[in-house]
Amino acid sequence: MRRKEFSVQEQQEIEDFLRSMSFGFLGTSGEDGYPHITPLNYTYQNGHIYFHGSKAGSKMKELVKSHKVSFAVAKEFAVIPSYFSDPRQACPATAFFKSVHIRGIAEPVDDLHEKAEALSGLMEKLQPEGGYAPITPDDPLYTGELKAVSVVRITVEDLTAKFKFGQNLKEDRLAQVMEGLEERGLAGDPETVEMMKRYCPFHNKDADRL
Amino acid sequence: MRRKEFSVQEQQEIEDFLRSMSFGFLGTSGEDGYPHITPLNYTYQNGHIYFHGSKAGSKMKELVKSHKVSFAVAKEFAVIPSYFSDPRQACPATAFFKSVHIRGIAEPVDDLHEKAEALSGLMEKLQPEGGYAPITPDDPLYTGELKAVSVVRITVEDLTAKFKFGQNLKEDRLAQVMEGLEERGLAGDPETVEMMKRYCPFHNKDADRL
Repeated sequence: MRRKEFSVQEQQEIEDFLRSMSFGFLGTSGEDGYPHITPLNYTYQNGHIYFHGSKAGSKMKELVKSHKVSFAVAKEFAVIPSYFSDPRQACPATAFFKSVHIRGIAEPVDDLHEKAEALSGLMEKLQPEGGYAPITPDDPLYTGELKAVSVVRITVEDLTAKFKFGQNLKEDRLAQVMEGLEERGLAGDPETVEMMKRYCPFHNKDADRL
Repeated sequence: MRRKEFSVQEQQEIEDFLRSMSFGFLGTSGEDGYPHITPLNYTYQNGHIYFHGSKAGSKMKELVKSHKVSFAVAKEFAVIPSYFSDPRQACPATAFFKSVHIRGIAEPVDDLHEKAEALSGLMEKLQPEGGYAPITPDDPLYTGELKAVSVVRITVEDLTAKFKFGQNLKEDRLAQVMEGLEERGLAGDPETVEMMKRYCPFHNKDADRL
């Protein structure tokens, strides 16, 4: 689904997901005709994606040539074995996941205050327990570092999300998969069952359609 | 590092990593000038990456227009807080990870036997406990399905790997981070310490340089 079609609740769930994940995959266009993919830690704040890197790095050079980028974040919740719903055929084997796909324009951030804010957001996410001096351009501990580091902002032009938890399954198959997960009981299985119920058109008439 | 520079041991570790991971990110070139990224389950076998999908899907349509693709797989082992090695400055905060980046040519597989082999590899990886009839084109259970599904092979032209476990750190910082991880003891921390030792130039003179 596309951003303009999201309900308020869906929008909230997508933002929660983006904030909960540690790293995503940046797609840039290489000069060699190949798309390039770079995994990187990011922060999602004020509706933008921010990441940082070395000014000399190859992804920074590509961004200068083409500002059009993609950014994807995905988490696999459970691998669903075929035998949950079919004793012989392998085809029902699948995986349930959440993924968010962004297309946007990447631009370097020059303003030191915006840089500091983005890096603070990254720290709050990856090191929520603290243990460092607040990042501000006025602290001599950071002035030089803030000038030296590259921070990039992706302005989101288009956002789509896919939360795949068996919404396409018929009611009996869906029940079989849910039962299978409840019996298997791997670490992520209870949360997966919860997601199946939340997004299932049979359990929840107002289910999100992500 | 690039494939041609890998030692036999490095090559083995990269292949083990590719086989251990459940999904990766496919990068294709969209007609709109944006790279597109699709997370998908894959199998790495006979030196190729294979994945499958619906013939009608948008990634299949893009592959027809441009065969040049990227494929990336990454796993974050540990987030390293800044205070492991610096009591005030946030800058040493980082993450240790393994990532593999492939550039290659994607082509649809038409041969039903190669299709069956690729899908069998995918099943062995995601459902190693079995519980399904072997996938062969001669089994009427699969003949129609094998014709209907799209299987794509990426022929690897270039493979680079980055296993980041503090190789760039000075000896005293490296020791502090190792100590910090040992004390913290999160689920992935012991394995991360093991990786740091394996790839550390101070611990291991023959350390891989990935």
